[in-house]
Amino acid sequence: MSQTAIARSWVEHANGHRDFPLQNLPLGIFSRPGEAPRCGVAIGDAILDLEAVLAAGLFEGQAKAAVEATQGGALNAFFALGAPARVALRERLLELLGEHSEHQAALAEALYPASACQMHLPAKVGDYTDFYVGIQHATNVGKLFRPDNPLLPNYKYVPIGYHGRASTLRPSGTEVRRPKGQTLPAGHTVPTFGPCARLDYELELGIWIGQGNAMGQAIDIAEAGEHLAGLCLLNDWSARDIQAWEYQPLGPFLSKSFITTLSPWVVTVEALAPFRRAQPARPQGDPQPLEYLLDAKDQAHGAFDIELEVLLLTQRMREQGLPAHRLALSNTLNMYWTVAQLIAHHSVNGCQLQPGDLFGSGTLSGPDAGSYGSLLEVTEGGKHPVELASGEVRKFLEDGDEVILRARCTRDGVASIGFGECRGTVVAAN
Amino acid sequence: MSQTAIARSWVEHANGHRDFPLQNLPLGIFSRPGEAPRCGVAIGDAILDLEAVLAAGLFEGQAKAAVEATQGGALNAFFALGAPARVALRERLLELLGEHSEHQAALAEALYPASACQMHLPAKVGDYTDFYVGIQHATNVGKLFRPDNPLLPNYKYVPIGYHGRASTLRPSGTEVRRPKGQTLPAGHTVPTFGPCARLDYELELGIWIGQGNAMGQAIDIAEAGEHLAGLCLLNDWSARDIQAWEYQPLGPFLSKSFITTLSPWVVTVEALAPFRRAQPARPQGDPQPLEYLLDAKDQAHGAFDIELEVLLLTQRMREQGLPAHRLALSNTLNMYWTVAQLIAHHSVNGCQLQPGDLFGSGTLSGPDAGSYGSLLEVTEGGKHPVELASGEVRKFLEDGDEVILRARCTRDGVASIGFGECRGTVVAAN
Repeated sequence: MSQTAIARSWVEHANGHRDFPLQNLPLGIFSRPGEAPRCGVAIGDAILDLEAVLAAGLFEGQAKAAVEATQGGALNAFFALGAPARVALRERLLELLGEHSEHQAALAEALYPASACQMHLPAKVGDYTDFYVGIQHATNVGKLFRPDNPLLPNYKYVPIGYHGRASTLRPSGTEVRRPKGQTLPAGHTVPTFGPCARLDYELELGIWIGQGNAMGQAIDIAEAGEHLAGLCLLNDWSARDIQAWEYQPLGPFLSKSFITTLSPWVVTVEALAPFRRAQPARPQGDPQPLEYLLDAKDQAHGAFDIELEVLLLTQRMREQGLPAHRLALSNTLNMYWTVAQLIAHHSVNGCQLQPGDLFGSGTLSGPDAGSYGSLLEVTEGGKHPVELASGEVRKFLEDGDEVILRARCTRDGVASIGFGECRGTVVAAN
Repeated sequence: MSQTAIARSWVEHANGHRDFPLQNLPLGIFSRPGEAPRCGVAIGDAILDLEAVLAAGLFEGQAKAAVEATQGGALNAFFALGAPARVALRERLLELLGEHSEHQAALAEALYPASACQMHLPAKVGDYTDFYVGIQHATNVGKLFRPDNPLLPNYKYVPIGYHGRASTLRPSGTEVRRPKGQTLPAGHTVPTFGPCARLDYELELGIWIGQGNAMGQAIDIAEAGEHLAGLCLLNDWSARDIQAWEYQPLGPFLSKSFITTLSPWVVTVEALAPFRRAQPARPQGDPQPLEYLLDAKDQAHGAFDIELEVLLLTQRMREQGLPAHRLALSNTLNMYWTVAQLIAHHSVNGCQLQPGDLFGSGTLSGPDAGSYGSLLEVTEGGKHPVELASGEVRKFLEDGDEVILRARCTRDGVASIGFGECRGTVVAAN
């Protein structure tokens, strides 16, 4: 397909927009000052108010039912409807926002500048699970503890994950209060209490579950992909010093639960279709996945090719007018397991997944230093500080530092789409 | 106070009732066939329908507001009101159900046999956290791996806990489907997939959170006890073979998330007041808790003296008409930390707790073999099977086995109260 064949929108700023051209149409929950949160679609630098479009009578049939399910300030009921509702809504939105739309005047009234709106979490998350499927990250972190044998014996068989805290999921832009906690200073045997001194970010993909399953009924790998609604960015802020002291034997707890930040737009499976890939071949010598995780179609098309980026902007850099410093460029192809494999594994014991559940992928580092998704890896546990154009150095995050995650899908001949940003600025401990 | 001074109810079967005399008045969500779930109070073998009593005009003021907050089939909004609402409702119920009540005729119409009602979860759990504060259990389990040094260095400083799965919390009586998963057979390096062969229960206290906190605002230890709404029993069913293979490095996941069973009645802080105790002194040589976990009043009154019991009833025992076999008798005084310490620790990093959040205590084993709260401990990992009157033996649970948890508070001169039962029967894997 040549560039000229890419469909255009009558919303001019959407055409060629970095994140939100006509081909993306991500869903989110927004509010205008003094008004209740409701569902919108990002188009260029604007948000289309779906309830206003509904009130104008521009939806019917399945698309209308889909929009009705978005009402109430959370997308859970919409997610529960699965792919048919998403597809019907998307097809109607492509008509309404496409350059040949007959309803431009009516729609223009339902279009607000995104900068004048506040974004919220897209759904009420019942359970949040954080996986650990970035094999480069697991290797890098493992090396800090076990240089010769970084990956544990289960890693290549089990999509490792753990339950996370749902109550402190927050949308992009929420301030990140430095947590306090117990830490064990080097060489000591008695812990001390105080603000985290090794505060870190983690670059992750956020995975929104659509239709769920009944307790006791595993989701088959062949159908698991149909339970995915869409993707976002996720920053799994981590207090490394608290984590090191608390995590044995039951895993990370307070070192993670102070906040987890999400990009607010759900980029749907349908928008991501051109960016599906074969799951990268496992390195020579790695075992094949067990049967319940193996599906030929999933192996052939189940991966995503999404470029991921981490940027850092310190207080001094802001004052000096310096641009954000790129800490990493990575890709979701660094996932050792597909999203369908995560879903099949999570439910194989009968665990119930529900619409609006969220998975984190785990930190998605690439194989080389410019692609590491956490400061723990970038600085090798603080040994090699990052140098910034402001003359500052960073081993871990300091108060005033802003971390910005971005994601973008590109492919010759189709419109690029992006995820929008996932931002958070560290503020001092209470 | 002499036995004769114990207040009596006009509901005759409540007087001297094992679990639910007038002094208990636990709250739960029940339904009658074909009707919507709503809030009730257990009294003897009956349930008082609070919505019916409300409709009869028998609540006013704060008690009325409290009952209104229970509407909608979940107690979260009621929990959010904190102690004043619970106290006002309790005082009014003591009048209405006391032997001198003027409203017996009206109330009798709102009283249903408990056996004709179905119980539900008392609240919609936002987040479920499972602690590990039974120090005897942690020691027993640690010994299986590290005979000379069973407790890890952090155990006596950090109230160890991890995030659990909220979506598979279920009320007593829900069947327990044997989970499938990956396990590593002894002597192998490649895992296999199949039904769990080492299925276990865990005897735990369930802890219901009342008022919550804002993200970023820690709950001070001096106020932490006020965030407790009440208690229940919790069976943290565990697949030991799945757990052994999956849990490194991020903790238990699918080995726990297939189901967690709760007793359905919330025994309130107010009903438990006569059974508060000083936190047992730490053994000589144990460190004092860090400052943020230490409060003189909490140390003096923050513990609970609740007797806990585990019973096993196999299919063959049922067929032979044999009584359930007592596997353990333990006590909540085996908790190494108070509930207030758990709340203060959980929020010290700024983590938000919300009304209706649930904590599990961790397995509450006592110091000797008759008090162990899991088969892993009772049989020492399967080495010493339990012998049953039916002629059967058990290393771990088999299909058809029912596990029954009970709890009871007794003290000279006051009415004993109980928690009701937490039951679950294992059914074959799908």
